Amino acid sequence: MNPGHLMAREIAEQPDVWRRFLREGSDQIAVAKARIADYSPRFVQFVARGTSDHAALYAKYLVEIHHQLPAGLVSPSSTTVYGARPKLEDVLYVAVSQSGGSPDLVKSVSVAREQGALTVAVTNNPDSALAEAAQLHIDVLAGPELSVAATKTYTAELLALYELFVGGGTADLPAFGEQVLANDEAVVTAAQRYRFAQRLITTARGYSYPTAREAALKLMETSYLSAQAFSGADLLHGPLATVDPQVPVIAIVPNNVGGHAMAPVLQRLEERHADILRVGAKLPNVADSLSPLLEILPLQQLALHLALARGGNPDEPRGLFKVTETL
Amino acid sequence: MNPGHLMAREIAEQPDVWRRFLREGSDQIAVAKARIADYSPRFVQFVARGTSDHAALYAKYLVEIHHQLPAGLVSPSSTTVYGARPKLEDVLYVAVSQSGGSPDLVKSVSVAREQGALTVAVTNNPDSALAEAAQLHIDVLAGPELSVAATKTYTAELLALYELFVGGGTADLPAFGEQVLANDEAVVTAAQRYRFAQRLITTARGYSYPTAREAALKLMETSYLSAQAFSGADLLHGPLATVDPQVPVIAIVPNNVGGHAMAPVLQRLEERHADILRVGAKLPNVADSLSPLLEILPLQQLALHLALARGGNPDEPRGLFKVTETL
Repeated sequence: MNPGHLMAREIAEQPDVWRRFLREGSDQIAVAKARIADYSPRFVQFVARGTSDHAALYAKYLVEIHHQLPAGLVSPSSTTVYGARPKLEDVLYVAVSQSGGSPDLVKSVSVAREQGALTVAVTNNPDSALAEAAQLHIDVLAGPELSVAATKTYTAELLALYELFVGGGTADLPAFGEQVLANDEAVVTAAQRYRFAQRLITTARGYSYPTAREAALKLMETSYLSAQAFSGADLLHGPLATVDPQVPVIAIVPNNVGGHAMAPVLQRLEERHADILRVGAKLPNVADSLSPLLEILPLQQLALHLALARGGNPDEPRGLFKVTETL
Repeated sequence: MNPGHLMAREIAEQPDVWRRFLREGSDQIAVAKARIADYSPRFVQFVARGTSDHAALYAKYLVEIHHQLPAGLVSPSSTTVYGARPKLEDVLYVAVSQSGGSPDLVKSVSVAREQGALTVAVTNNPDSALAEAAQLHIDVLAGPELSVAATKTYTAELLALYELFVGGGTADLPAFGEQVLANDEAVVTAAQRYRFAQRLITTARGYSYPTAREAALKLMETSYLSAQAFSGADLLHGPLATVDPQVPVIAIVPNNVGGHAMAPVLQRLEERHADILRVGAKLPNVADSLSPLLEILPLQQLALHLALARGGNPDEPRGLFKVTETL
């Protein structure tokens, strides 16, 4: 088998995965939405690790912006290491995990449920311990993910969380995804250009910030370079000092309010003569909150092509297992 | 003036800054504590940028573990870029900023106050716009900070937040700080050892995770290397693939439950033959929640010495200003 064939296949599958979720996932979404409306949470907490943590961060923006509710990302160690037992009677507690197998997430959800939260697990495995531990389970229906670098489960999680907290406006999304994936010349060129890069910075604001985080993680996992993600605002607070013309910057700047808010950041980067690759400006026209599903596609392709250009096999990164057990 | 003399002086000042806060800061803490108890928050949100974001993350652990309340870090762009107006009638909203001058934090606090939150600003400038915008202000009393790399304001923020949310057990802390600062041979050796490092990883769990984040930022700001911080649990989820014997790892492993929870992470790093510097095991004996004040001291010294070893001037990092204006 060719190196990277699993990752390539799973990247390509994503529009079909979205079609399936939009077709077959609506009943479970309706059940969960009704239960959540009935519970009427005062506050929403998310718990996740790795790639799924970026999906959770995306959902935090959805909740803050579309539901006008305060939201937060849980530090699992408060519960699992320090034994905290927070009061959660009016809290919606959402765990996101492709495998549903991380013991620390299962423990966090069990404790949250005991503490009175309404718990929801969003996973790609309805038979997982996490799906079992939560009152509600959303199956992202992505099918088996064989590549160690998660791609289709990431965007499936994004779509499931979008449908859970917002919904609608997704009819053209799968076709748009196909269009973006087919249009990969710039990615192939960029992969050649970054062949010898040792470090790389990704940056974005708002809904696109999770994209910057996920792109950095994917590049690290597959290409072993040091990729750091910064919100545009935080980049100006210190890490800008590390940017010089030898450090490529990938800026996710879709044509929406999050992208526009990057203008002062791009200006400062240009003053430093940074090498900037802009991603997202030519994407098909979708709601700001759906843009992350499309933005990540060329960056997944970049992680794949760069890994191959550097002689690696992104299907089997060194030192990585698919489920991480931390307690 | 010698390069780095400001940063060196401000690092050395920290035990005296703490003494001053413990002596003169208690009245404002008592007032704020009474007002918060009276308000009886259901949830605590923190908003901050850069170094102060790490102090906010520390305080999130304090709230989760000592108050059993759910807590979160705000994404300011939800409010400032997307115009979200969350319902905050029972939320304690804490902004942390040394200068109190970032317009996006001022805007976030103003909106939170309009939305019914009890707002607290923790700053080093009682005349700042942020101190003005919030109902309560805690002055961290660190005195003017002239070095661009924040050091004494960071630990002053930690101490102020500790006193606000926990309090007590601090009598020996300044003397312990002096002891740690005097004991800097290992730091000087490490700075020589990392002279040619291009990238570096910091890792920790629980209360020490903010230390890992702050150490990475300080190294980036002053020494222009690419320093990445990971919670021990997240490191195992993907970035471990980037660790090889050429990438030094700084693990913050105090002799407490957070440090002990790092055991499986250290084991995996050792299997990869990583170069690991352990920080914190020999620190004076303080409560787990006070350990971050001492742990960061050798890492601030490391950032200073490494910057000097590399020919830089940590008092004036390239591309950095003291107050960052993002809106």
